Amino acid sequence: MARRVNSSVSVGLDDDVEDRQRTFPNMRSKTYTPLVFRMLMGINVRVLLVLLFVSLGVMFYLGARTSSIIVFVFTICLLSFLFSIYLARWVLKKDEGPPEMVQISDAIREGAEGFFRTQYGSISKMSVILAVVILVIYLFRHMTPQQESSGVGRTMSACITVVAFLLGAFCSGAAGYVGMWVSVRANVRVSSAARRSAREPLQIAVRAGGLSAIVVVGMAVLGVAVLYATFYVLLGVGLPGSMKVTDLPLLLVGYGFGASFVALFAQLGGGIYTKAADVGADLVGKVEQGIPEDDPRNPAVIADLVGDNVGDCAARGADLFESIAAEIISAMILGGTMAERCKLEDPTGFILFPLVVHSFDLVVSSLGVLSIRGTRDLSLKVSSEDPMAILQKGYSITIFLALIAFGVSTRWLLYTERAPLAWLNFALCGLVGIITAYTFFGITKYYTDYKHEPVRNLALSSSTGHGTNIIAGVSLGLESTGLPVLVISAAIISSFWLGQTSGLMDESGSATGGLFGTAVATMGMLSTAAYVLTMDMFGPIADNAGGIVEMSQQPESVREITDLLDAVGNTTKATTKGFAIGSAALASFLLFSAYMDEVASFARIPFNQVDIAIPEVFVGGLLGSMLIYVFSAWACAAVGRSAQEVVTEVRRQFIERPGIMDYTEKPDYGRCVAIVASASLREMIKPGALAVVSPIVIGFVFRVFGRVTGQPLLGPKVVASMLMFATVSGILMALFLNTAGGAWDNAKKFIETGALGGKGSDTHKAAVTGDTVGDPFKDTAGPSLHVLIKMLATITLVMAPVFL
Amino acid sequence: MARRVNSSVSVGLDDDVEDRQRTFPNMRSKTYTPLVFRMLMGINVRVLLVLLFVSLGVMFYLGARTSSIIVFVFTICLLSFLFSIYLARWVLKKDEGPPEMVQISDAIREGAEGFFRTQYGSISKMSVILAVVILVIYLFRHMTPQQESSGVGRTMSACITVVAFLLGAFCSGAAGYVGMWVSVRANVRVSSAARRSAREPLQIAVRAGGLSAIVVVGMAVLGVAVLYATFYVLLGVGLPGSMKVTDLPLLLVGYGFGASFVALFAQLGGGIYTKAADVGADLVGKVEQGIPEDDPRNPAVIADLVGDNVGDCAARGADLFESIAAEIISAMILGGTMAERCKLEDPTGFILFPLVVHSFDLVVSSLGVLSIRGTRDLSLKVSSEDPMAILQKGYSITIFLALIAFGVSTRWLLYTERAPLAWLNFALCGLVGIITAYTFFGITKYYTDYKHEPVRNLALSSSTGHGTNIIAGVSLGLESTGLPVLVISAAIISSFWLGQTSGLMDESGSATGGLFGTAVATMGMLSTAAYVLTMDMFGPIADNAGGIVEMSQQPESVREITDLLDAVGNTTKATTKGFAIGSAALASFLLFSAYMDEVASFARIPFNQVDIAIPEVFVGGLLGSMLIYVFSAWACAAVGRSAQEVVTEVRRQFIERPGIMDYTEKPDYGRCVAIVASASLREMIKPGALAVVSPIVIGFVFRVFGRVTGQPLLGPKVVASMLMFATVSGILMALFLNTAGGAWDNAKKFIETGALGGKGSDTHKAAVTGDTVGDPFKDTAGPSLHVLIKMLATITLVMAPVFL
Repeated sequence: MARRVNSSVSVGLDDDVEDRQRTFPNMRSKTYTPLVFRMLMGINVRVLLVLLFVSLGVMFYLGARTSSIIVFVFTICLLSFLFSIYLARWVLKKDEGPPEMVQISDAIREGAEGFFRTQYGSISKMSVILAVVILVIYLFRHMTPQQESSGVGRTMSACITVVAFLLGAFCSGAAGYVGMWVSVRANVRVSSAARRSAREPLQIAVRAGGLSAIVVVGMAVLGVAVLYATFYVLLGVGLPGSMKVTDLPLLLVGYGFGASFVALFAQLGGGIYTKAADVGADLVGKVEQGIPEDDPRNPAVIADLVGDNVGDCAARGADLFESIAAEIISAMILGGTMAERCKLEDPTGFILFPLVVHSFDLVVSSLGVLSIRGTRDLSLKVSSEDPMAILQKGYSITIFLALIAFGVSTRWLLYTERAPLAWLNFALCGLVGIITAYTFFGITKYYTDYKHEPVRNLALSSSTGHGTNIIAGVSLGLESTGLPVLVISAAIISSFWLGQTSGLMDESGSATGGLFGTAVATMGMLSTAAYVLTMDMFGPIADNAGGIVEMSQQPESVREITDLLDAVGNTTKATTKGFAIGSAALASFLLFSAYMDEVASFARIPFNQVDIAIPEVFVGGLLGSMLIYVFSAWACAAVGRSAQEVVTEVRRQFIERPGIMDYTEKPDYGRCVAIVASASLREMIKPGALAVVSPIVIGFVFRVFGRVTGQPLLGPKVVASMLMFATVSGILMALFLNTAGGAWDNAKKFIETGALGGKGSDTHKAAVTGDTVGDPFKDTAGPSLHVLIKMLATITLVMAPVFL
Repeated sequence: MARRVNSSVSVGLDDDVEDRQRTFPNMRSKTYTPLVFRMLMGINVRVLLVLLFVSLGVMFYLGARTSSIIVFVFTICLLSFLFSIYLARWVLKKDEGPPEMVQISDAIREGAEGFFRTQYGSISKMSVILAVVILVIYLFRHMTPQQESSGVGRTMSACITVVAFLLGAFCSGAAGYVGMWVSVRANVRVSSAARRSAREPLQIAVRAGGLSAIVVVGMAVLGVAVLYATFYVLLGVGLPGSMKVTDLPLLLVGYGFGASFVALFAQLGGGIYTKAADVGADLVGKVEQGIPEDDPRNPAVIADLVGDNVGDCAARGADLFESIAAEIISAMILGGTMAERCKLEDPTGFILFPLVVHSFDLVVSSLGVLSIRGTRDLSLKVSSEDPMAILQKGYSITIFLALIAFGVSTRWLLYTERAPLAWLNFALCGLVGIITAYTFFGITKYYTDYKHEPVRNLALSSSTGHGTNIIAGVSLGLESTGLPVLVISAAIISSFWLGQTSGLMDESGSATGGLFGTAVATMGMLSTAAYVLTMDMFGPIADNAGGIVEMSQQPESVREITDLLDAVGNTTKATTKGFAIGSAALASFLLFSAYMDEVASFARIPFNQVDIAIPEVFVGGLLGSMLIYVFSAWACAAVGRSAQEVVTEVRRQFIERPGIMDYTEKPDYGRCVAIVASASLREMIKPGALAVVSPIVIGFVFRVFGRVTGQPLLGPKVVASMLMFATVSGILMALFLNTAGGAWDNAKKFIETGALGGKGSDTHKAAVTGDTVGDPFKDTAGPSLHVLIKMLATITLVMAPVFL
């Protein structure tokens, strides 16, 4: 042991630039810088600054011409970006620790940025191709009567959709980049701070997470607001003979589709990357060679640490970005539809409500992040505090503030003289959403935290072997779908009825507020999104910091601090997924209604029923559910295949460089990084293409079949049923995959605390198998399904002309 | 090795009655004979014979008064029963082999019969309770206008439903009993014959399987026919002022529900039993102690062999029985509805068509079974033949005959002057069904046979460890849902359109044959059900025979023969499951339509749409899908828990009786049997109750909610959506579970042939883990889902009055 520490120290001290060259020689070998990045990087900084100020000016000018609410949203977003710059400076001011840490961190950063560039290079190419496809489709689409009357021509409509799509895609990519940019810089600072105290690394990780979260949420809000204001002014909305303001939100759909399209590939690629590296590293390192996790002797360890950044940080950033964008747009569409039906005098409040909710979200979450103090508060006994309790205290503060802010926003924007108490009903819908979010946290925690029965039973079942561990984990995951479904069901029905009884009536006197009530509940659920995303981003940063500490072979006490943070990060990651899937379920239900409105408006006949007793519609449902199963299969299989490549490479290195095990030779980390990168880029295409192509093909085939058999609107009906069944199956499958994965992970961690034989026992080995199986479940297939559900909803909206 | 064989021989020869008492002392400890069995067994044989002849006479009298078609059906059923008596005598005439085989076989028989008595005792109690509940509900139900006009009062209607339910339950139980009765007698005869030749055991196993299959199918057909004829005569159907013949099939629904209710618990209890014993025996025996499968030193081995009989034979008998009953009844309902709509002069042919199809099924399958010859045909080279090829040859013959028979039946019964070519369209629908069945076989074989890519890749992924094996297996299972769904979709749509274009029109001139076309396709799919069931029953008999050979320590050559049969049995079992789920999918779609007709007729308002855009209906779908997940979870967890009890007991015996391992002490087989039996009886209640209670609760809650919110028919709509989503999720989940389980099993078998390191290697250990996980998937949860899907359809039909 002494020898080992010595040798590691010598490795650390002897390292100079040359050595770094030798250790990570081909880290960038497979990466290249795509044209778009090179162009951006080639622009002079001053020019950029001038451009920035000009665009700010234009933005506020457009906002002022649209609505004072838009100006309010712009202002909050601007302030949030200034706050995030403050956070960035605060985090970057922290020291990066000793050279061995810096060296590792540099390697991680290079690997992550290299992969990011290559991945987003491919994604941007696909986006451009898709944009051309959309353009062509829209140039040949039918026109809605509203569009014709408002003078928005085919070309205009096509351009609007394509621009929105590209902007959504770009912002989604930028959100991913920010997530990764922050985490590769924060990780080493957290590791370094862990050498000094327990509280400081927590604060750094939280602030770094908060920084990404605020930028991501702010960008989602700003993007929608800018598009809205631009189209408003450009199309002369509200002027006589022009488009009505209530139809405007439908033009934003392209933005949501662009965001989810990029998020899907980001999540798939990143998810495959991180888990292929993780599984591959564990299988040879932990299981075969018996070395600890993140041990520097493992050639795949850098790839594993890179994976946390590209998989969890970048992908989750893109994921939450598109969640919020999709949810804002669908709520705006529903608000517009309802305002139109009720013939409200000023529908602006109902349409812009989601933007205001998320502006307040930025404010309250910032306060929540700030509420987590560093070590300076000396009156508290620092060491005795549980990091989870600190994070939860921050969350409670945020929720409390969000409740107040939500009440204020409903009174401000949703008050109408037609139904003076409607805003109260909608505030209650928001409360339903917030309670749903909280309950989801609780349920996920119950099923994935080892303080509770399920994970303890799972750990116990590991004592009878690998097989019983897997059976128990699968059962746990399948069972864990029960309560969330009951909660979601209760939320949908109660918020629908709160909306329905709000007093808002259409012209014929029937209640119309139901769906908007559900939309408000979704907003309530997402009204603390930035804080939730902060907690989520906290996880991989802490995980990475732990890896750097382990790799740079710090003393045991430092590792204990990062291990604790890592464990907390695991729980917050699992609970965030519950939150994400809950909001995805609600958002898809909204987008589904928007889709039916859209089809009705294009087909010029009412379309308000999807009757599953028609054989073709039933078949659409079957196909939709099947899509979820096959997509999950391909995502998991991709991880399996890529991991096998890593295993082969790591085994080869251990054989060819026998000195690795006694620290006399250095493993070739770069080769593993390159292998994982190219494998995950290759593997993300198949499931991604399936998700994008199948709804279009199904809609088109049944459109033709409907023509032949004389069934009008068959295409859109089949697609609607496909969408609904896919949503339901996707929710259940994602819940199953996420919870089972999280539970296996924590069952292993529980055994590692010394229970049931502790590390190295047969029980532990069985638990490691469960953890390995859970990896692609919870970090590749599961999160990709969140995105998939929403992408299906937005793609059907954008591609609706193909089915008609 | 020599010592081992010696010692075993001495065990075999020394065994006398006293020794048997010592070895299996408390085999019957937990079993008792319920009242109903004691009553039946107490009746004098001559009295029974007289009763039999009297009932035959009554039966034919009723048949003659109803329709000549019914007489035809009765005759065929009677002949089939005579043929099955011939088969039984043929099988029983075979020798039971040496005393050691007889001793093991006796132990298996006692264990199986003991469990069967206890299990069916519990099930019969539950059935009686449920019958009372149904009685009460029907005494307070609304009446349909038809019923009122035909003078079928409330009491009459209640009695009819309850009698049908109890008869269905009884016959389902009897079908299970026959399956088990045959297999516990055939197994030892197959083992004994394996000592003589390769072909004879195959023939015995096939004929024994054929015997159960013919009795099961015959009983399903006869039960429906007898009920139909009885109600026909009793209610004076067809007379003026009485019930119309087209409404008669709806009265039979209780029969289907009774059958599926019993089948559900039979499959759950049996499935948990067989897999708890199997997993428990493997975990300690194979994995911990390293002794082979079915080794006599393993205390759980008898329980494992008992499990094959109660799980696979008894449960699959009940399962197929209810499949056929449910499918016949739903097709009769649809035939009646269509005949009524088209105002056909003689609707009898359309209504009784399914009974005739299955009568022909009995004939052609009997010929198929007879086509598999024994060793007497000396012109063939016996040893070089593949048993699978022989079975497939028999299947090809059966399919060919079935095609001809189907053509004849359609021309005979479905010819109507209104649409002279309709029968041809329906014959094509039958062809669609037969092709679907064949394609399903092919797909399942592709995904589960180790001659093909998927299982080979799965075996390869075992070489990198337990974790990658499980990931690959889960991906394989999820992916394998794709093609079957495409095939089912094509079958539903094409048969619907063949029916729709058959030329049958209702009074308003719109085409009405669509759903009946789908029904005919389902019948086509099931038109070789008896032969398929034969192949399925063949599996566990061969498996058991292998176990007996292993336990009685026969020479290697004998084992090779039974191993080969066992491997073939595994493939046929997997393919039969594909067949069962395919027909379940089609049958549920039919029952769903029947349910909508039923609701419409009770509510007296049209009910022909289930609109999933309504929040409550969407929530119903969510809940339905969730039901499938939680049910699967509980079924798998039950196996896990019971298996852990077995593991603990087996470990205890190995510790307390150290002599077991060197054959100086005998393990206490009986204790394991008792433990598994009581555990599985306890564990089957929870998932079973969930399945029965949830649809009733959901329907009732939303009925009340609909009243409160002023939405008429909300209860039935939500239940309909629940049913559809549950069906779709159930089909996919069952496909996933069955295929993954089968593939894991065969990946292990592939490695055991010597590939990738062969038995004992690390790769093999990983494959054994996969096999263990697959056990509850493919033999407990998967098959239970088939039954669950149909039980949900029948329970909603019977309980419809609760939702209104």
